[in-house]
Amino acid sequence: MKQLKQITVIGLGLLGGSVTKGILHYFKGVKAVGYAHRAVTRAKAKKCKAASEVTADLPGSVRNADIVILCTPIFTFESFFEKIAAALPSGCIVTDVGSTKVLPHRWAAKCLGKAVYYVGSHPIAGSEHRGIEFAEHDLFKNTDCIVTTTKTTNNKSVVQMKKFWARLGCNVKKMSPAEHDRIYSKVSHLPHITAASLINVNNADDLKFAGSGLLDTSRIASGPVNIWSDILLANGKNCLRQIDELIVELKKFKDAISVNDRRRVEKLLYAARDKRAAIIKHKKSREAES
Amino acid sequence: MKQLKQITVIGLGLLGGSVTKGILHYFKGVKAVGYAHRAVTRAKAKKCKAASEVTADLPGSVRNADIVILCTPIFTFESFFEKIAAALPSGCIVTDVGSTKVLPHRWAAKCLGKAVYYVGSHPIAGSEHRGIEFAEHDLFKNTDCIVTTTKTTNNKSVVQMKKFWARLGCNVKKMSPAEHDRIYSKVSHLPHITAASLINVNNADDLKFAGSGLLDTSRIASGPVNIWSDILLANGKNCLRQIDELIVELKKFKDAISVNDRRRVEKLLYAARDKRAAIIKHKKSREAES
Repeated sequence: MKQLKQITVIGLGLLGGSVTKGILHYFKGVKAVGYAHRAVTRAKAKKCKAASEVTADLPGSVRNADIVILCTPIFTFESFFEKIAAALPSGCIVTDVGSTKVLPHRWAAKCLGKAVYYVGSHPIAGSEHRGIEFAEHDLFKNTDCIVTTTKTTNNKSVVQMKKFWARLGCNVKKMSPAEHDRIYSKVSHLPHITAASLINVNNADDLKFAGSGLLDTSRIASGPVNIWSDILLANGKNCLRQIDELIVELKKFKDAISVNDRRRVEKLLYAARDKRAAIIKHKKSREAES
Repeated sequence: MKQLKQITVIGLGLLGGSVTKGILHYFKGVKAVGYAHRAVTRAKAKKCKAASEVTADLPGSVRNADIVILCTPIFTFESFFEKIAAALPSGCIVTDVGSTKVLPHRWAAKCLGKAVYYVGSHPIAGSEHRGIEFAEHDLFKNTDCIVTTTKTTNNKSVVQMKKFWARLGCNVKKMSPAEHDRIYSKVSHLPHITAASLINVNNADDLKFAGSGLLDTSRIASGPVNIWSDILLANGKNCLRQIDELIVELKKFKDAISVNDRRRVEKLLYAARDKRAAIIKHKKSREAES
C-alpha cells in the first residue's frame, strides 16, 4: 500500500466516527481528520477522541488527504464532491460509505477532476443506533465491504481501498455499482421497507400484543429516517421491482392458504427455513476462517 | 385457587416441557404429568427431569388431572379432545397453548363433555428453537398470556387459568377467541409469512450478502414448519386479510418512491419508527412494574 499520511472522513456519525476510530487503531502514524458540519458533533467527536483532528473547514480538511471518505447521507454526496473538488490534491482517492452505488459513481464522474480517483465503498455495518456516541473502532470487523468499480476506475486505487477496508476487518468484495444496487435492494432495502410496513399495518393498541417475533422482524424500522429515505430514493427503480417481487411471494402464501393447501404452505416455509439455514452456515464458516 | 394435585401436559416440546418444568418450579406439591407420543421425547423428558411422571398412556395421564394442557400442534387438538374426553374427571379444566383460538374453542365444544371446562390459552412465548432440550421453567416470565373465553365458558375455571399463568410469570389478558385471532394474525402470523417471503424472494447467491438486518427480519422464518403451517391454516381468513393489508402498505412505499416523493417516504418511515418506539416503551414500562 502507498505510504499513507492522512485520511479524511467527512461526516462523523456512527459510521464516520467508527472509520476515524478504526484509522487511529489500525493505521498507526496515519492522521485521521474528521470534518463535521455541526458544532455539537465536533464537540462529541473531540470528547471521545474519535479523530486526530476535528474540523469545520471542509476544503482544509481534504487538502493534504491521501484518502477522503464521505460518511454522510447519500444525497449530500454530489454537493460535497462539488465543494471539495478544487481542494483535493492530485492522486487523492475519494470514496464513500453510501448504501447505494450507482448515483455516487455518476456524481463523482461529473464533479471530481481527472487527477483524483473515485472508488465506491459500502461496508455492511451499522445498527438502528445513530451518532458518534455509538462509534467503535471494530464496527467493521467480520462485515462485508463491497468495493464498486467501473471501466474507468483506477486499478491501483481499487487495490488500495480493498486493503484499507480489509485492515478495518472487512471481507472485501468487488462488483459493479449496478450489481451492488440490485443485490442490496433485495437483501437490505426491501427488508427495510417491509419492516416499516409490518409496523404501519398495525394500530398502536394491537402492537401492545407484539411478541419478540415482530420486534425482531421490525428492528431495522427504528433506523435513522433521513439515511433510509436517501437510500430508498437513490435506489428507487430496484426497490420498486423488489416490492413487486415480494408481493408475488406474499401472494403464493395467499393462494396456498385460501385453498387450505397444507403441502404448499409447508413447501414455502421449508424453502425459507432451508435458505436461511444456508445463510447462517455461510456466515459461520466465514467467521471460523477469519 | 382450588387445591391442585395434578396437572397434565400433553406434548413435551419446547412449550410443553417449559410448562411441566414451570409447574415443578412454581407449584410445589403439584404432580406434573407429561404425555408424549414418541419414545425419544419421553426419554429426553425423563433425562432432563422435566416432569414428575412421563407417560405414553394418554387416558391414564389425564384420569386424575385437575388441569390438562395441550401443547401439541393445533390440528392435533380435535383428535386429542376426542381421545381424552371419556377419561377426563368431572370438574377438570382443559386448556391448550395453541397460537390460534377460534378452532380450539369450536373443537372443545364439540368433543368435550359438559362436566369439564375448556378455557383457551395462548402464552406468547417460544423461539425459533424446538424440542424439550430448550425448555426452561421461566420461559413464560414477563410474556403475555391471552386467556380466551366465550359466553359459555365457566367463570371459576377462567379465574383459575389466569392464576395458573400468572404464577408462571405471565401478564394475563382475557379476550374472545375471534379478537385473539384477529390481533395475532396482525402481530405474529403476518410477520411470519413476511419473514419467509423475504427469504424466498432472494436466491441463495444474493443471500450471501445479507447483513444483520435481513437476518433479524427473517429470524422467525427458521421456526418449526409443522407448527407454523398449522397456525397459518387455522387462522387462514385473518391471514389472507392481513396479507392484503400489508400489500396496501407496501404499495404506499411504491407510490411514494415511484414519484420520488421524499416527504411521503419519510412520513412512512417516521410513522413506523415512532410506533415501534412506543411498543418498546410499553414493554419496558411493564417490565419495570413486574
